[in-house]
Amino acid sequence: MEALDYHAEERRKAEFDLEEMKIVWAGSRQNYEISDRMARLVASDPVFRKDNRTMLSRKDLFKDTLRKAAHAWKRIIELRLSEEEAHMLRSYVDQPAFTDLHWHEKWLPMAYKMQIIGCYAQTELGHGSNVQGLETTATFDPQTDEFVIHSPTLTSSKWWPGGLGKVSTHAVVYARLITGAQDHGVHGFIVQLRSLDDHSPLPGITVGDIGMKFGSGAYNSMDNGLLRFDHVRIPRNQMLMRVSQVTREGKFVQSDVPRQLVYGTMVYVRQTIVSDASCALARAVCIATRYSAVRRQFGSQNGGPETQVIDYKTQQSRLFPLLASAYAFRFVGEWLKWLYADVTQRLQANDFSTLPEAHACTAGLKSMTTSVTADAIEECRKLCGGHGYLSNSGLPELFAVYIPTCTYEGDNVVLLLQVARFLMKTVSQLGSGKKPVGTTAYMGRAEHLMQCRCEVERAEDWLKPSVILEAFEARAFRMSIACAKNLSKFSNPEGGFSELSPDLLEAAIAHCQLIVFSKYIEKLQQDIPGKGVKRQLEILCNVYALHLLHKHLGDFVTTSCITPKQGALANEQLRLLYSQVRPNAITLVDAFNYTDHYLGSVLGCYNGNVYQRLYEEAWKDPLNDTVVPDGYLEYVRPILKQHIRTARL
Amino acid sequence: MEALDYHAEERRKAEFDLEEMKIVWAGSRQNYEISDRMARLVASDPVFRKDNRTMLSRKDLFKDTLRKAAHAWKRIIELRLSEEEAHMLRSYVDQPAFTDLHWHEKWLPMAYKMQIIGCYAQTELGHGSNVQGLETTATFDPQTDEFVIHSPTLTSSKWWPGGLGKVSTHAVVYARLITGAQDHGVHGFIVQLRSLDDHSPLPGITVGDIGMKFGSGAYNSMDNGLLRFDHVRIPRNQMLMRVSQVTREGKFVQSDVPRQLVYGTMVYVRQTIVSDASCALARAVCIATRYSAVRRQFGSQNGGPETQVIDYKTQQSRLFPLLASAYAFRFVGEWLKWLYADVTQRLQANDFSTLPEAHACTAGLKSMTTSVTADAIEECRKLCGGHGYLSNSGLPELFAVYIPTCTYEGDNVVLLLQVARFLMKTVSQLGSGKKPVGTTAYMGRAEHLMQCRCEVERAEDWLKPSVILEAFEARAFRMSIACAKNLSKFSNPEGGFSELSPDLLEAAIAHCQLIVFSKYIEKLQQDIPGKGVKRQLEILCNVYALHLLHKHLGDFVTTSCITPKQGALANEQLRLLYSQVRPNAITLVDAFNYTDHYLGSVLGCYNGNVYQRLYEEAWKDPLNDTVVPDGYLEYVRPILKQHIRTARL
Repeated sequence: MEALDYHAEERRKAEFDLEEMKIVWAGSRQNYEISDRMARLVASDPVFRKDNRTMLSRKDLFKDTLRKAAHAWKRIIELRLSEEEAHMLRSYVDQPAFTDLHWHEKWLPMAYKMQIIGCYAQTELGHGSNVQGLETTATFDPQTDEFVIHSPTLTSSKWWPGGLGKVSTHAVVYARLITGAQDHGVHGFIVQLRSLDDHSPLPGITVGDIGMKFGSGAYNSMDNGLLRFDHVRIPRNQMLMRVSQVTREGKFVQSDVPRQLVYGTMVYVRQTIVSDASCALARAVCIATRYSAVRRQFGSQNGGPETQVIDYKTQQSRLFPLLASAYAFRFVGEWLKWLYADVTQRLQANDFSTLPEAHACTAGLKSMTTSVTADAIEECRKLCGGHGYLSNSGLPELFAVYIPTCTYEGDNVVLLLQVARFLMKTVSQLGSGKKPVGTTAYMGRAEHLMQCRCEVERAEDWLKPSVILEAFEARAFRMSIACAKNLSKFSNPEGGFSELSPDLLEAAIAHCQLIVFSKYIEKLQQDIPGKGVKRQLEILCNVYALHLLHKHLGDFVTTSCITPKQGALANEQLRLLYSQVRPNAITLVDAFNYTDHYLGSVLGCYNGNVYQRLYEEAWKDPLNDTVVPDGYLEYVRPILKQHIRTARL
Repeated sequence: MEALDYHAEERRKAEFDLEEMKIVWAGSRQNYEISDRMARLVASDPVFRKDNRTMLSRKDLFKDTLRKAAHAWKRIIELRLSEEEAHMLRSYVDQPAFTDLHWHEKWLPMAYKMQIIGCYAQTELGHGSNVQGLETTATFDPQTDEFVIHSPTLTSSKWWPGGLGKVSTHAVVYARLITGAQDHGVHGFIVQLRSLDDHSPLPGITVGDIGMKFGSGAYNSMDNGLLRFDHVRIPRNQMLMRVSQVTREGKFVQSDVPRQLVYGTMVYVRQTIVSDASCALARAVCIATRYSAVRRQFGSQNGGPETQVIDYKTQQSRLFPLLASAYAFRFVGEWLKWLYADVTQRLQANDFSTLPEAHACTAGLKSMTTSVTADAIEECRKLCGGHGYLSNSGLPELFAVYIPTCTYEGDNVVLLLQVARFLMKTVSQLGSGKKPVGTTAYMGRAEHLMQCRCEVERAEDWLKPSVILEAFEARAFRMSIACAKNLSKFSNPEGGFSELSPDLLEAAIAHCQLIVFSKYIEKLQQDIPGKGVKRQLEILCNVYALHLLHKHLGDFVTTSCITPKQGALANEQLRLLYSQVRPNAITLVDAFNYTDHYLGSVLGCYNGNVYQRLYEEAWKDPLNDTVVPDGYLEYVRPILKQHIRTARL
């Protein structure tokens, strides 16, 4: 039965070399091979089974997660996996666990040495994005050479840290450092939370799980925790003293380590988030694309089969831009890896010149790619019609587990405002001779970008990357300039920034879309082997750009970057491009090389045998354990048997 | 403690009469009183408690639902509630149950007479929107005077009907009627599924639940079911013979009852969906608005409290248009009730003239309001920051339980295409002298709408309803005309419609937005008592229109309905309107009169004591039953105790 391939006909239509495309997607042949090997390793191991996950109670789900984490640990050691391999393996296990955070880059060496399980306790019940608003205190006691960690208010309770609730033995706690009567702002402290003998919380520590989160499986495998301190004492040397120190006498000393170093870590973390966004988006798109080829609705002629929904232009116009976005985010993620390496190298040479631009760029890309991905997963679910609402479509869980990405490591709106601030600064310095660098370099061509006119006359003119690029650059630049102009009318710049913030967000988005598109074009300038591979990527690149142009037509037209007529031509070209994507769609999602285990979707399974599997999966629901449901005798039968006592109803 | 009101200061700021606004929202004083009484009745009854819902296993959740349904039934009879009161009570129980469908208008009399529990079995595993594609057969056997109901394929399995899986004893089954060798298309048949003695499925019937759906509580309280028939025989008189009949001899006879009657029911059902959309949207907005006034982030000056997030323009620009939409949908829903009454009256007088327009209008409004509401619930969740991701914020469950509305009773995209088809027909008849009626009447002013120019010169000009209305009419009309023009270039009209369908969707949306806005204006032309009430509604009406104008700026500008400059002025006016909404925001959501029970949200609770309640709720999670989690000994301790055997990691 499983030898059947309902997509065989679709796969025959492909006009490019799938194996080469897989390598492009993975980034390199080596990445591809590791990823493929780890995915199969996980998929073939019964301990990592996850098809029953949404039916488990919270407790059982959590226990299952502990079991998988321990098993992954065991396999990693047994197989002597490299750090990269281990990372891949954990990501294919696809179940959020305390180990995701525990094995976080910076924490790792300490965790290994100390035989502990650690987490980061930063956010508080009443304080999220604004780290400077944290309330937990760490007061130095010179008499005992200790810090006293304390939660002075309810809102100062630590809240959200992953792994904190039930598993972590230690935490890096962020707290206001107080020496004498002075508040030195927020610093990190290592605090033991639980006994290493019996795992019970230490005196003065109140710790627990914060409760159920979105979805039935999703992030409920993680013990996001709460934590309160009642005057907990720790030795002075458990303050993280890389940036500042407290002496034995209680003197606060700033080190000369540049504070900018922290931005390096931010660039790293956000780079991985962009890369994960492309993975999550690709996963949703893969499911929706495959099922759109299986599913048929309407259009039957002479009693023949109905039309595959993927053949409808309404379906294509919603789905193919997301497919294109998956590739676009993949390539910008790859470029961010390079950027991180570049920043690291410069930091080591004490060159901080590119840091603000790199920081703004990664903040913007984190925000933009995760917001698009979150919305896109839900859009893919809708593209699967009614069956997308079933948990075993994989999409509800994917959505529920993905969306926190829009909030953590910087709320997406807060991050875009940071980008906008950087853009306004860059604009304000244009006259001063300071040359904008990196992803803002285009702003250096201010005069040209304010004057240029799009020269598109026919639909096919919209296929030239240089033409689209100029339109995107002009749009982004003119929106920034318009904001700057409006800002200058306010006597109080901060008030103006706040008042105009909705417009500033739009300017920041325009800038971020430009970055993604321009990095895609750079990718296409590289040598890309394989029959038809580059051609497909070019088509998707145009789809990516032109769908944005249509979506934000108001931006382009009101800034006079293009005329209404040119907008209509772009739309016409877009329709033609969809027809070119159509025969390759199934193979373009095959290139993601996802196993059925990882996809976790009946609708997206490789061979397309969807209906058979939906039917089989249904019987696994606990409600089907008995033919007559629990509660029938107490609550249903009496209704059926009673005589109506009132006619009024 | 609960006497505290953290929102007291906000409530003092209101510039209008709250009690009168509550009546406006409810539609009448009588509606308000019934609604208020039923809401309190449910909220005060411990059986209807729902705060632990997301933590229940599927089986326990289902049993809890049966219990609540039986209790609601009991209370309705004991209190001799009217049909309207009973409907309200069930809606405040706020847990999808088989009774929602069983008590459906049309089924009701039969259900009472027969002492059965019924459901509608229409959609099939392989067939959703396209009813004509159903595969289940009902073959007449003249020898026994019976129909033989059969599922010939796997894809013909009935799939999705609510209440079917575990509870219903009977179903109205939609199947292809076959007499002799002839297929007469799809008709309805009443089929008994389960024994009335012991609830076991009858011979030839396979029935069960289709499995877990989106979310942890949400629609998992409902036993959406699957159903297969193996040559099940039913007497001939169990065919629903209102529209067509089969005689004793097996002759198929179409009755002379007009088929249009079915549209009357559609108008009714979709009207209730629009009304429910305003309720769901209002609920999400209420939660997000109240929490936005409690939550503070950044902006602390001189160590004072941080800024309430509701004071940020970014928050206002996302939240207030949704608040305005809730009111707008409420009023258009009210108007649809009138439309349904009007249609019913005409049908009784055999006047079918307004039916196509009424049908297109309700289809479009169902599609538009539910799509907006689904997206808005998720937007409200994001507006609550990290805590919105907790189940007890109420928003994850509200989202999960709401989104199927976009699919059932007509997929939203399919419905919009029906609207577009009607618009194209209307346009094509403009020259013929046939006058467009009802919500398309504006198209009768074709010449004016193609020529008119918006006369806005200053931001405040955008406060005139007539100015905005003309811009919306011109935009909708010109988009329809542009589609019609492009369609005329295709030699095959169906091919053209399919090729241009993405543009046609946009034209249909423009038309629907116009309907909502124009009905809001009509509402404002009525007498609305109460200090400041009308004024607030006028402000919200302008917010509704101008935020759409900004969102769809490309439409307005490329069709030359407004200039880019006028678009910028609208945006400027919109910001001023947000400032006017701000002091009234909390009271405007108080007007929905939702109990804390119904809201089901810690973040949205009436008195704003959010952090205390979040903290208390956390401890109720089953993971917190023990300090040391289940699984610690097996899966965590070994990791902590083992010595590292490899340095390679």
